Amino acid sequence: MSSTAALAPLAQRAIGVFDSGVGGLTVLRALQAALPAEHFLYLGDTARLPYGTKSEHTVARYALQAADELVARDIKCLVVACNTASAAALPAMRDRYGELPVIGVIEPGARAACQSTHNGHIAVLGTDSTVRGGAYTRAIQAINPRASVLGIACPLFVALAEEGWIEGEVAQAVAARYLQPLLAQALPAADTLVLGCTHFPVLAPVIAATVGKGVHIVDSAATTAAAVRAELERARLLRPAATSPAAASAADALQFLATDGVERFAAIGSRFLGQDIDATAVELIDL
Amino acid sequence: MSSTAALAPLAQRAIGVFDSGVGGLTVLRALQAALPAEHFLYLGDTARLPYGTKSEHTVARYALQAADELVARDIKCLVVACNTASAAALPAMRDRYGELPVIGVIEPGARAACQSTHNGHIAVLGTDSTVRGGAYTRAIQAINPRASVLGIACPLFVALAEEGWIEGEVAQAVAARYLQPLLAQALPAADTLVLGCTHFPVLAPVIAATVGKGVHIVDSAATTAAAVRAELERARLLRPAATSPAAASAADALQFLATDGVERFAAIGSRFLGQDIDATAVELIDL
Repeated sequence: MSSTAALAPLAQRAIGVFDSGVGGLTVLRALQAALPAEHFLYLGDTARLPYGTKSEHTVARYALQAADELVARDIKCLVVACNTASAAALPAMRDRYGELPVIGVIEPGARAACQSTHNGHIAVLGTDSTVRGGAYTRAIQAINPRASVLGIACPLFVALAEEGWIEGEVAQAVAARYLQPLLAQALPAADTLVLGCTHFPVLAPVIAATVGKGVHIVDSAATTAAAVRAELERARLLRPAATSPAAASAADALQFLATDGVERFAAIGSRFLGQDIDATAVELIDL
Repeated sequence: MSSTAALAPLAQRAIGVFDSGVGGLTVLRALQAALPAEHFLYLGDTARLPYGTKSEHTVARYALQAADELVARDIKCLVVACNTASAAALPAMRDRYGELPVIGVIEPGARAACQSTHNGHIAVLGTDSTVRGGAYTRAIQAINPRASVLGIACPLFVALAEEGWIEGEVAQAVAARYLQPLLAQALPAADTLVLGCTHFPVLAPVIAATVGKGVHIVDSAATTAAAVRAELERARLLRPAATSPAAASAADALQFLATDGVERFAAIGSRFLGQDIDATAVELIDL
């Protein structure tokens, strides 16, 4: 990928979006809203999900294989729409792909949290792996060294989101149990809560109801989309809004790759993306 | 592996137990209880779990790779302690390993369910993949063609079991929601409930409390252990109870392999096995 290539063809290329499964579709949804003229190529590594319970070494290896596949398909920018993979593999990807912009979800989420907090107490909800690895804590404290960060691993939120049980008694009971540390009187109360897993935005209403109005919720999907837009503007890679008469069809504008279970990807993914995904249009690939 | 080899060395070999992760440790626990003189080599494919959401083709491929690894380590018998892998790969394994006895969890569970039921109505709880694939229905109806089988996919039970939330408000709410069809008046009431996923035995108390005393719960771990014992007796492969003075140490009697995250394997696995697993004794392998 040479920077001496004409800008126009490069700008026409798709934005590659990678996730371990369907959760990253919440990021894709935010990207579509922020960048309606863009084309997207989404890869869900559904054969090997979840990443959140795997070691950093394994996650990095899987993520690089998936990213290689997207880069081989001539994307202009890579969005790592998976907190676990962002934490494990972003530096390695930036080394590997040279000038290709690579944007993860953690830095934008950390920046938004630091802008939101007034009292410096930030809570981060994530998978076991994201919380244990401490990537949000490092990213937040790199911006605001005095911020205190409380990580809460909420693995059942992933299962709830995939099952579609995003409201009702079970979701409320799970949220109450995980968020108990935030409500305990003994701790300094966090005023900002980062949804540090792409599955969690669909649970935002029950999470918000549990923590109450005093806590601002940062959805890293929206903040990542804003970061991608800024990066494309900086690199002069935004796709022109006015297209030629032979404009690309809707099918070209949004393409999906999955490493397993295209029917399941389409069925569950539709809920995360907020629009129907046709299973026959999901390409099955092997990494 | 030749049947002309002397019986004694073959009988001294370990029983290989394979699962996608830690759930099969409930089967290992039942095997240890049923066969206290035996040695066991357990492989958890933790890098690629869960199998329950993956396609049959992918599960079969992964399961054969894992089984190859155990067979290469000179086991005398292979126990597939994973419902999803049993459904997807048992015939292929029996073809591939010739005379090596290969025992899955589905046939023993189906037999026990048919022995238990009086009214011919059996419910099976499992993962999406196990229920969708219908392997229990086929196995039960091969024994009793008039049995009715109601499959209920309970993916959140897996997450609850791994999180250790096996009692209390959340477990009760999840059980009540999944088991609602069993309690509905419109259906003929099942009198037998098969725990068709190796994660579920740790949730047996809350499941039993939800369905009430009129429903007999079949734990396929115990029934599989009985089937393994019968097969080893038939094949004259039982390890002699009396060992030599240079008897194997406890470490030889129980060995673990995992494809990722040995600390997590040991931490969560201890709950499923019912005894502590030392993470430093878990061998990390790559398949």
